[in-house]
Amino acid sequence: MQHFASDNYAGICPEALQALINSNTSGHEPAYGDDSWTTQVCDRIRDLFQTDCEVFFVFNGTAANSLALASLCQSYHSVICHELAHIETDECGGPEFFSGGSKLLTARGENGKLTPDAIEELVTKRADIHYPKPKVVALTQATEVGTVYTVEEIRAIAAIAKRRHLKVHMDGARFANAVATLGVHPSEITWRAGVDVLCFGGTKNGLPVGEAVVFFDKALAADFAYRLKQAGQLASKMRFISAPWLGLLDDDVWLRNARHANAMAQLMAERLVEIPGVSLLFKPESNAVFAELPTHVATALRAKGWRFYQFIGSGGCRLMCAWDTQRETVERFVDDVRTLAAST
Amino acid sequence: MQHFASDNYAGICPEALQALINSNTSGHEPAYGDDSWTTQVCDRIRDLFQTDCEVFFVFNGTAANSLALASLCQSYHSVICHELAHIETDECGGPEFFSGGSKLLTARGENGKLTPDAIEELVTKRADIHYPKPKVVALTQATEVGTVYTVEEIRAIAAIAKRRHLKVHMDGARFANAVATLGVHPSEITWRAGVDVLCFGGTKNGLPVGEAVVFFDKALAADFAYRLKQAGQLASKMRFISAPWLGLLDDDVWLRNARHANAMAQLMAERLVEIPGVSLLFKPESNAVFAELPTHVATALRAKGWRFYQFIGSGGCRLMCAWDTQRETVERFVDDVRTLAAST
Amino acid sequence: MQHFASDNYAGICPEALQALINSNTSGHEPAYGDDSWTTQVCDRIRDLFQTDCEVFFVFNGTAANSLALASLCQSYHSVICHELAHIETDECGGPEFFSGGSKLLTARGENGKLTPDAIEELVTKRADIHYPKPKVVALTQATEVGTVYTVEEIRAIAAIAKRRHLKVHMDGARFANAVATLGVHPSEITWRAGVDVLCFGGTKNGLPVGEAVVFFDKALAADFAYRLKQAGQLASKMRFISAPWLGLLDDDVWLRNARHANAMAQLMAERLVEIPGVSLLFKPESNAVFAELPTHVATALRAKGWRFYQFIGSGGCRLMCAWDTQRETVERFVDDVRTLAAST
Amino acid sequence: MQHFASDNYAGICPEALQALINSNTSGHEPAYGDDSWTTQVCDRIRDLFQTDCEVFFVFNGTAANSLALASLCQSYHSVICHELAHIETDECGGPEFFSGGSKLLTARGENGKLTPDAIEELVTKRADIHYPKPKVVALTQATEVGTVYTVEEIRAIAAIAKRRHLKVHMDGARFANAVATLGVHPSEITWRAGVDVLCFGGTKNGLPVGEAVVFFDKALAADFAYRLKQAGQLASKMRFISAPWLGLLDDDVWLRNARHANAMAQLMAERLVEIPGVSLLFKPESNAVFAELPTHVATALRAKGWRFYQFIGSGGCRLMCAWDTQRETVERFVDDVRTLAAST
Repeated sequence: MQHFASDNYAGICPEALQALINSNTSGHEPAYGDDSWTTQVCDRIRDLFQTDCEVFFVFNGTAANSLALASLCQSYHSVICHELAHIETDECGGPEFFSGGSKLLTARGENGKLTPDAIEELVTKRADIHYPKPKVVALTQATEVGTVYTVEEIRAIAAIAKRRHLKVHMDGARFANAVATLGVHPSEITWRAGVDVLCFGGTKNGLPVGEAVVFFDKALAADFAYRLKQAGQLASKMRFISAPWLGLLDDDVWLRNARHANAMAQLMAERLVEIPGVSLLFKPESNAVFAELPTHVATALRAKGWRFYQFIGSGGCRLMCAWDTQRETVERFVDDVRTLAAST
Repeated sequence: MQHFASDNYAGICPEALQALINSNTSGHEPAYGDDSWTTQVCDRIRDLFQTDCEVFFVFNGTAANSLALASLCQSYHSVICHELAHIETDECGGPEFFSGGSKLLTARGENGKLTPDAIEELVTKRADIHYPKPKVVALTQATEVGTVYTVEEIRAIAAIAKRRHLKVHMDGARFANAVATLGVHPSEITWRAGVDVLCFGGTKNGLPVGEAVVFFDKALAADFAYRLKQAGQLASKMRFISAPWLGLLDDDVWLRNARHANAMAQLMAERLVEIPGVSLLFKPESNAVFAELPTHVATALRAKGWRFYQFIGSGGCRLMCAWDTQRETVERFVDDVRTLAAST
Repeated sequence: MQHFASDNYAGICPEALQALINSNTSGHEPAYGDDSWTTQVCDRIRDLFQTDCEVFFVFNGTAANSLALASLCQSYHSVICHELAHIETDECGGPEFFSGGSKLLTARGENGKLTPDAIEELVTKRADIHYPKPKVVALTQATEVGTVYTVEEIRAIAAIAKRRHLKVHMDGARFANAVATLGVHPSEITWRAGVDVLCFGGTKNGLPVGEAVVFFDKALAADFAYRLKQAGQLASKMRFISAPWLGLLDDDVWLRNARHANAMAQLMAERLVEIPGVSLLFKPESNAVFAELPTHVATALRAKGWRFYQFIGSGGCRLMCAWDTQRETVERFVDDVRTLAAST
Repeated sequence: MQHFASDNYAGICPEALQALINSNTSGHEPAYGDDSWTTQVCDRIRDLFQTDCEVFFVFNGTAANSLALASLCQSYHSVICHELAHIETDECGGPEFFSGGSKLLTARGENGKLTPDAIEELVTKRADIHYPKPKVVALTQATEVGTVYTVEEIRAIAAIAKRRHLKVHMDGARFANAVATLGVHPSEITWRAGVDVLCFGGTKNGLPVGEAVVFFDKALAADFAYRLKQAGQLASKMRFISAPWLGLLDDDVWLRNARHANAMAQLMAERLVEIPGVSLLFKPESNAVFAELPTHVATALRAKGWRFYQFIGSGGCRLMCAWDTQRETVERFVDDVRTLAAST
């Protein structure tokens, strides 16, 4: 049975699995990334972004974000992010741990997005040594609430970051979904817009495990390989982390997977709003739908076996679609909502 | 072409790969370890050790060792280990990083093994607050030089650890090889001998990625799940880390893999010592052969394409056998050594 | 010239200075706290609190708070505090640094005070491993805005802490001022009310340097001496940190100093509210006055040489009184306010 | 009674105490180092070294060394030092803690000194990411065993450091004693010889508390003030940490104090070697005498009340002289040794 709790509930997409299997046929391969598969994938990612950049593979998103941020700031610096950012709400203090104590300074913002003004306010609020000095702006693309920064929004944030000597980090756990939504070249919302480091998510897009950390500013990647090793993020049999990316990159499967998930979210949203008593909390611009259901409906859905996140004490629900979410699952879920909403 | 540089050069063993593929057929599964595969594997590991214990999965050995040690000591404590221990020589300061600064106190010892006397000496050398207080003894089983602690040796170390209020950690990156050599039940060299925490290596035994951390003293595992999450070691699609263990555990494939690697090392050692000018540096008790070759032979072997670790400025070589090392590869390597040694 | 910027602007009170000088006359003394002065002061503090407790001396408040908190939680735990708490706003990430990444969870609350309900809400909001587990409640007594928790308020907070398995930490940088205000025995607002660890401030009360960390729950102080040493907080010539406390403790100089500072704040507040256009932002219950002045008045005061903290973009001002603040300084300041306010 | 256990047993020298008292007469002074006394002392230290440099004050030597080193390397880097260096043997893991896990790589060396060859060997031994990358050479001047690096020795070490891209840190807990011994300008053994950062010891030289961290390479001091604040090393009433330095700097009291302590050690050494059965373990070049006494003599001395460090299981003793060690104390101690040695 499929669920809408998380895009992590989905398995490995066929192409990634095949690439993994293929990489196991080449017999012995050097360990720790000195293998031919890893070299190939790094080159492919550089090609994808149309620029020379440093590419590293880590095991998950917490590590990707935390280590990227740690390479951008010291323990007495701070990171500006949205109050709903994953690094603030769902990494159990990972960024603080890996950086040795860097503080996250959170800002509010419509639709889960940071704004230049919010950043400016946080940067200029304090300028004394009793408060950690801002060094990084961290964006999430797509955001935690399913919205997507436009190219212009990212550029505007990068501009204020430049003026205030802040590095720009992008948490791209659902980067593919954002690119699919915007229909732009991936470089347009990263280095061409002023992003220094991208955590390029693979797991939610169909990989078994692993994210890529892409440093567009190569100087920031100095000794990053040592950092990964020390932090327990260097895979010995690296090919099994890197090679599956080939399954995503060949024939733009990564975009196809993202487009499908996005489309399922669109379908879900369109169907849900037709139901009396149901409303959307955010505009669904990627693969997430945030809907307000009557509380009893949400409860009843769970009783029927559906799994999804529900905000405590309300009918607010997060419904995530994955690369493998079936149209009929969406239809069936919506039917259940409709039926339950009608039967009060 | 196969090599002897590392048992990490080998790929995924067929049984583990099949288990991975199987786990991908169950559609959506809860993330972060709440899936049925992970539950099943944890139970299987408890069965294997014939005791109730806490089982966690992490991505690699650096993380397994570092996080296990961090859970046993605070930053101002210290860990006693052999001077050749992997945690001292090959984890780029991982244990110090994850513990926030715990110092490793190293001891010498024949055959890469700690002794009760060496531990006693380190513990009693200092008792002032200017020196970090010893809290843990870390053993490597099998050791870095391919030897294996006997049951009695482990018990004797655990006894002195108990007397000195030290916890006992076992780095079992090659635990399977040690069990295969000793021919004892795995519990005999772990909890029945006084080990508190075992890092049970899976990667070198045939997995694509991942190790298990097994807390025999369950109290020591309190909040360990939070520690893993914060440290970037919680897999979202956990089943792909846990399920492959089924391939190893079913029909004792883990032991068969280890026995094969050990046998290949034995074969290698037996053949090598017959060659004039070649001697063994350590008794090969697991899947490693440490041999002293004439320097020009070692150099010539590398020129022929063989890959293995060679100690700087000497003919000392480490030759690792893996679960998939073929008899003919060993024979061919030995033939090359013989030919080169004769042609001085 | 005296100022109202900080109670840290004041010097050493005569009695503390004399005790410092006295301790220098005893010739050679053992280092690192094994001297007779330190022993004596520790006993005196135990006497003061009428209980057996562990007493340590550190150099400043950031260290006292950060190290006390670090001893109460691991890196993946969290600390609940008021959003205006010094540990959140003015220690440059010290608590996060010393704990290796513990997150501060902030709550709002009237008059700068935490409430049992706010704590309960933070504790129960999340119970998953993606969010750091609350372990400590940190109170500031007197608070950052000059208010004081009553005995009953502390007891109520400690009760909810007990129920939720949280330790209770008290930042007592101005503990003396709170005791002076409440007129209770110091034990009544600490261990008798459920406080586990108190950071007992000395500097703002008249010492040259140094705070005491008092563990009422002695078990929590295990190996704390090692922690201090590693953290650079163990004074070699400890007597010069400890002995000055004798000057404060003899004849209750600490209370006299605090009462005087409080009285000056009362005087300041009483005089200010008589001036048209001036209002108080918080009830002055200790040695701080938070007043809203006409912006042009605040600006003009600074132009006349007065130093005090002014909130950006407003006439909100913090006016701190110290153990040595003279009545005539207060009168002169108030006169200046009155004159300036009248001359718009 | 005076002892030879540590130069930390001595009190505050009269000039430093007077400066402390003087600084208390100036009424209110800005906190956190913005006071006139601190500005003055920083300028005086710049004058002393005849160069523009960044000067910071911290509370003790552990903090000075650990924070200076943390500013020179990241957690995955390493620091090369002598195996007897204080940072290795007596700071309870302070350097590892403040740096977040940097490893100390220790070398042996005659007379407690590092050599260029030993450094070269450590730097070139490993060049893989599994071992922390060397970034700093840490020298102790005078050394832990009372010897002193010559100008030429420091220059030679700095040269190899330059070639290997290592920064040079000097632990100068007894810097004054070294300068007094060598009779050179302090710049000759610091920045003119290639030292990047000096931890300039004040406590052992006669201060109550505090050391100075002097960055000759000012770029390395970027944001160091934030680091100090976060690490609990920023004194609120800074003047009481900084002003006492005036007592040392005026009329070169720091050198006079050091010369006196050195002279007492010389006297001690000269007298001791005349006694049959007594020998020196190291050449006494500063204020320490390392002597081998007959074990029963060492024991008997302690029974008579003398306090000094004795190496476990031997008659090796460390005898430290301080700025206030009296000639008659030395004579009395030597008389006791002579009498006891004769009475076997």
